[in-house]
Amino acid sequence: MVSAKTVLSLYKEKIDIELRKYLSRKIKEADKISPYAGEVIEHVADLTLRGGKRIRPALFYYSFLAHGGKDRKRAVLASLAIEMSETYLLIHDDIMDDDELRRGGVTIHESYSRIADEKFKTKSNPRLFGSSMAINAGDIACAMSNEILVNSGFKADLIVKAINELNKTYIKECYGQTLDVYSQLRDDVEPDDVILVHELKTVPYTFDGPLKIGAILAGANEKDLKKLSDFAVPLGTAFQIQDDILGMFSSEEKLGKPVTSDLKEGKKTLLILDALKVADKKQKEIIESNLGNKNVSLTGLRAVRRVVEETGSLERSKKLAEKLVSKAMKALDSLKLEKEGKEFLLGIADYMIKRDY
Amino acid sequence: MVSAKTVLSLYKEKIDIELRKYLSRKIKEADKISPYAGEVIEHVADLTLRGGKRIRPALFYYSFLAHGGKDRKRAVLASLAIEMSETYLLIHDDIMDDDELRRGGVTIHESYSRIADEKFKTKSNPRLFGSSMAINAGDIACAMSNEILVNSGFKADLIVKAINELNKTYIKECYGQTLDVYSQLRDDVEPDDVILVHELKTVPYTFDGPLKIGAILAGANEKDLKKLSDFAVPLGTAFQIQDDILGMFSSEEKLGKPVTSDLKEGKKTLLILDALKVADKKQKEIIESNLGNKNVSLTGLRAVRRVVEETGSLERSKKLAEKLVSKAMKALDSLKLEKEGKEFLLGIADYMIKRDY
Repeated sequence: MVSAKTVLSLYKEKIDIELRKYLSRKIKEADKISPYAGEVIEHVADLTLRGGKRIRPALFYYSFLAHGGKDRKRAVLASLAIEMSETYLLIHDDIMDDDELRRGGVTIHESYSRIADEKFKTKSNPRLFGSSMAINAGDIACAMSNEILVNSGFKADLIVKAINELNKTYIKECYGQTLDVYSQLRDDVEPDDVILVHELKTVPYTFDGPLKIGAILAGANEKDLKKLSDFAVPLGTAFQIQDDILGMFSSEEKLGKPVTSDLKEGKKTLLILDALKVADKKQKEIIESNLGNKNVSLTGLRAVRRVVEETGSLERSKKLAEKLVSKAMKALDSLKLEKEGKEFLLGIADYMIKRDY
Repeated sequence: MVSAKTVLSLYKEKIDIELRKYLSRKIKEADKISPYAGEVIEHVADLTLRGGKRIRPALFYYSFLAHGGKDRKRAVLASLAIEMSETYLLIHDDIMDDDELRRGGVTIHESYSRIADEKFKTKSNPRLFGSSMAINAGDIACAMSNEILVNSGFKADLIVKAINELNKTYIKECYGQTLDVYSQLRDDVEPDDVILVHELKTVPYTFDGPLKIGAILAGANEKDLKKLSDFAVPLGTAFQIQDDILGMFSSEEKLGKPVTSDLKEGKKTLLILDALKVADKKQKEIIESNLGNKNVSLTGLRAVRRVVEETGSLERSKKLAEKLVSKAMKALDSLKLEKEGKEFLLGIADYMIKRDY
């Protein structure tokens, strides 16, 4: 059997060809209107094309196949909508987190902020200029995601359902962002709050949304969609737990952004909250002096890593993620689905937890 | 004949009832998820309900009737999508312009910035917190606009076309915003650039989009839609010219924001560019020392007003707007449309140019 990772990379080749075609067409269209319009689409295109594993559109595509969808070419084209939704959310997320790097390159708000700094030094507010342009860029990617689905050529009643699901996903994501931004400042964040952020911010747009939209376009009914959530929700939560682990224990090279950035942002992950719960006084001090510290150093990060390991928090997080993945796989296994799609979905669930980037 | 202004205010009563119902339902839904989610929807609802003339959804509604649409109740409900699109764009626009006031109240980013200042004084960046929350609020309003259209109960193929038009409108609007933000900093802005900003930023979402989406849901064909643009484009340009005049010559009470704010932002309107073209040295100095001046005073504004009048720029702008409105009305008059809708559209075109707020 071909591994899900291989299937994913073959799918990535396919979608990347279409993404490149789509985005260069869009750049041309925008350039005709104005070079400034062209420039913003170039930023959107660059961010989209310079990285990304395409897991979300792949989940869409294989869910489509798993639910009996036949028109593969049309489905690949429709899957661009899912990738553009990722681009949209990343751009706005990066403004909120004030991140400088994403996918190994400069974020859009940072890139425009530098343009303002160079070109309009004296009279501009480069940070405001940067975030304004990135708001526009994200808004455009959002409209593109809707536009692609609308023009995907599936039956109109299926498209209507798909667009509905996509926008429900966006609203959940925004609630998740709202809670996440708040939780970076609140002192009373509990593990339940963190889980809720995962359920709103990660699960819908990474798993539940793509899987359901794929299923909808294949003609799945309400009952099928509900069952999909039993797979999507635990898997998505496990994915986020793994993401938080990587955010603390991976490298800048693999993350595409500084390995200190989660800590700097003051991200209250399950990993951190769990460690705090059992930490002694000294261990607590180590976490608290580094979490949310804008000048956090690699030494600080290493000290926090040690506490997370010594308190057993890392081990517990890993175990929890594994348990959730098993639960997800069991739920999926019980569904009657077409073989090729189902195999990929099972395989990807397994891969999620083993990935190191 | 009942005046368009009266028809508009009767329509406003109708849509406001539905907007209130819709938004309080949404607040309740969000509150169940988290009080922070509820809070962001409350901000969206407050901004939507505390002002606005509802011109855009009215254009949608009467275009629907003009093109033979019959189901009035359904059309009023669908028109909420157009009002939520206004809310979306205003929220993001206010972040970009860093405006403190909108519709006589505090803007969403400013409101959240104050929350951060009060609650999380020491460790937060209130401005980043404010704009992050407003990005979310705008994104939610955008998703709502799509969601409302999708669930409007019209035939699926009409909804698909309508969603397509809505998102094309959003992309144009974002190009317009991009150009607008740039033009506040560029030294080489020409009248053509200003007109292009109007054509992208104002015309699509205020006129062309609402009119076309209304027509689409009534079953209009491509040819009908094209003709509508002959009405929408000159009318929209006239509207923006009038808006720029009001932005300089109206009062804070009528504008819902400081009457100095366009000047402070450095907005290069046709009014300003035209005045600069014929201004003598002293008049030029007056404009240049006040335009984009963050500390511009009422005395400064009054001096600029005098230059705009003395150079004849105000008069020329007014004449141009009138000419454009006549052109728009003539284009509309030649179309075969149902009486009630057509009368309103003609009447509103006339009203646009006579409004003083």
